[in-house]
Amino acid sequence: MIRIGIMGYGNLARGVEAAVTKSEDMELVAVFSRRDPASVKIKTEGVEVYPASEAVNFKDKIDVMVLCGGSATDLMGQTPEYVQYFNCVDSFDTHVKIMQHYEEVKEVANANGTLAAISCGWDPGLFSINRVYADAILPGGSVYTFWGKGVSQGHSDAVRRIEGVIDARQYTIPVEAAMERIRNGETPEFTTREKHTRYCYVVAEEGADKERITSEIVNMPNYFDEYDTTVEFISAEEMKANHSGLPHGGVVIHSGTTGQEDQFNNVIEYKLNLDSNPFFTGSVLTSVARAVYRMSQEGRTGCITMADIAPAYLINKTTEDLLHHYM
Amino acid sequence: MIRIGIMGYGNLARGVEAAVTKSEDMELVAVFSRRDPASVKIKTEGVEVYPASEAVNFKDKIDVMVLCGGSATDLMGQTPEYVQYFNCVDSFDTHVKIMQHYEEVKEVANANGTLAAISCGWDPGLFSINRVYADAILPGGSVYTFWGKGVSQGHSDAVRRIEGVIDARQYTIPVEAAMERIRNGETPEFTTREKHTRYCYVVAEEGADKERITSEIVNMPNYFDEYDTTVEFISAEEMKANHSGLPHGGVVIHSGTTGQEDQFNNVIEYKLNLDSNPFFTGSVLTSVARAVYRMSQEGRTGCITMADIAPAYLINKTTEDLLHHYM
Repeated sequence: MIRIGIMGYGNLARGVEAAVTKSEDMELVAVFSRRDPASVKIKTEGVEVYPASEAVNFKDKIDVMVLCGGSATDLMGQTPEYVQYFNCVDSFDTHVKIMQHYEEVKEVANANGTLAAISCGWDPGLFSINRVYADAILPGGSVYTFWGKGVSQGHSDAVRRIEGVIDARQYTIPVEAAMERIRNGETPEFTTREKHTRYCYVVAEEGADKERITSEIVNMPNYFDEYDTTVEFISAEEMKANHSGLPHGGVVIHSGTTGQEDQFNNVIEYKLNLDSNPFFTGSVLTSVARAVYRMSQEGRTGCITMADIAPAYLINKTTEDLLHHYM
Repeated sequence: MIRIGIMGYGNLARGVEAAVTKSEDMELVAVFSRRDPASVKIKTEGVEVYPASEAVNFKDKIDVMVLCGGSATDLMGQTPEYVQYFNCVDSFDTHVKIMQHYEEVKEVANANGTLAAISCGWDPGLFSINRVYADAILPGGSVYTFWGKGVSQGHSDAVRRIEGVIDARQYTIPVEAAMERIRNGETPEFTTREKHTRYCYVVAEEGADKERITSEIVNMPNYFDEYDTTVEFISAEEMKANHSGLPHGGVVIHSGTTGQEDQFNNVIEYKLNLDSNPFFTGSVLTSVARAVYRMSQEGRTGCITMADIAPAYLINKTTEDLLHHYM
């Protein structure tokens, strides 16, 4: 059994916990939290919640620690810290800092004989490796990534900070016509506006100036000003009934040629449609934890991403199973 | 430079040759053929065609031999033979014999310190690893593979063998409504007929009995009897003008749940749309040759499939490139 620890207990951690429960080759050993452990109720019976500060005592009891904090404030500190003691998996997604994070984690991991997989999930993660596969096979092609339809938590939070807004949910929606052009072999240069639209459901305070709120949303720099954004005001009840979930998804489409004269066009498309973004991401992290354990057992140390993991390491199947049922 | 040899020179080999030409880290060293070398005209200037029997003399001049023969009669003999001397890549796709082929290749490769990747291409190959990824992340889900729209060479050949048929081209067409059901999260059990239809373009001899030909096609056991098949008679000119290509493609759709109560559904879809099946397959084999070379350099021997290859090995990019541009 691969012994798993979970650091942090938000939505992503709940996804990891559920995936570990479903994995016959894994067991959850402990959950760690910076909150008061007594206030953290987990789903797995017989497993305890400990203060994050006690994690180091589990050095020999946990094979892989899955770090479920956020990229903005947690992971750049946590992954280098915990990789001193454990093999680690994180979902670091701050693109401009990924090289720095990689180097920092690698140095500590190599010094301690541990292995960490960073930036796992679906983007970065599954979408990243699909970009790698596609460009390996059709080098010099054009790759496009579309996100949605799905809830962007960052954009939802930004709307919630506007005066007079009680609650908000922002959906990112890919422009179907733009995707169709790529699927048909075209390789256009899109503006930001041409690829995605944004749709905001807002619960406003009674008497709030809805025109001002709408204007503040659609003109918000970085978040909305480069998009066509629709704002719809709804009741708190409707928000709860219809927009409680965190669905997401997206598609990577790579278009490239083969043939001595580039005479043949080819389109490779990888698409996700997820009822729950954090639970799916948690499932990805769990399969990566399996791979990290196996690669660590083979003596691999340092820092890797999903591009460094052979697919067979991710799945709980024998070589014979794979040859018979997956090829 | 990775030194590539090509064994056999049909459509697939032309695809490998074109892909090697486009790969800055590879050079084509030699093409081998069982035909009279003087009769084989290849595209790459300065590269010679040799009799297959001379391949063994290139033991130290070729890093990876890409075997471009067919599964039916060539590869079960060729891969174990040539892996005595070379790292090899093949596209073996006779599913019921894959375990036997794997074991035979593995034994010879291990005895000779070489590495072979078998069953590479898109199905088996890219579709296989997508089944692995999806089932690793969403274990216990339902996976569906649809092929087409594309030309099935085996079915085209079967029609050509019918008396009175001069030429034929058979297209396999996935049933759009069936795919939509899977994309919407349903997990039905389909009959063969419900997943694909078949469409045959036939050039008949003058005065041939078209009703008999049609009847022989649509009732042909194993090939057509379990499908809804449409037969259309066309002229030789129309065949040449509109059906000379070998387009193909298909889709793997995996539907599975996350959450402690399996409350969230997720759909993962991987789709290919290829102007030329053999040229795309040749491009896949070429990227696998790169991976085989690199893994062999690291001391790996034996037999692998694409499920054993980390994506980063397939592409001619540095770790820094991958972190910056693909994550």
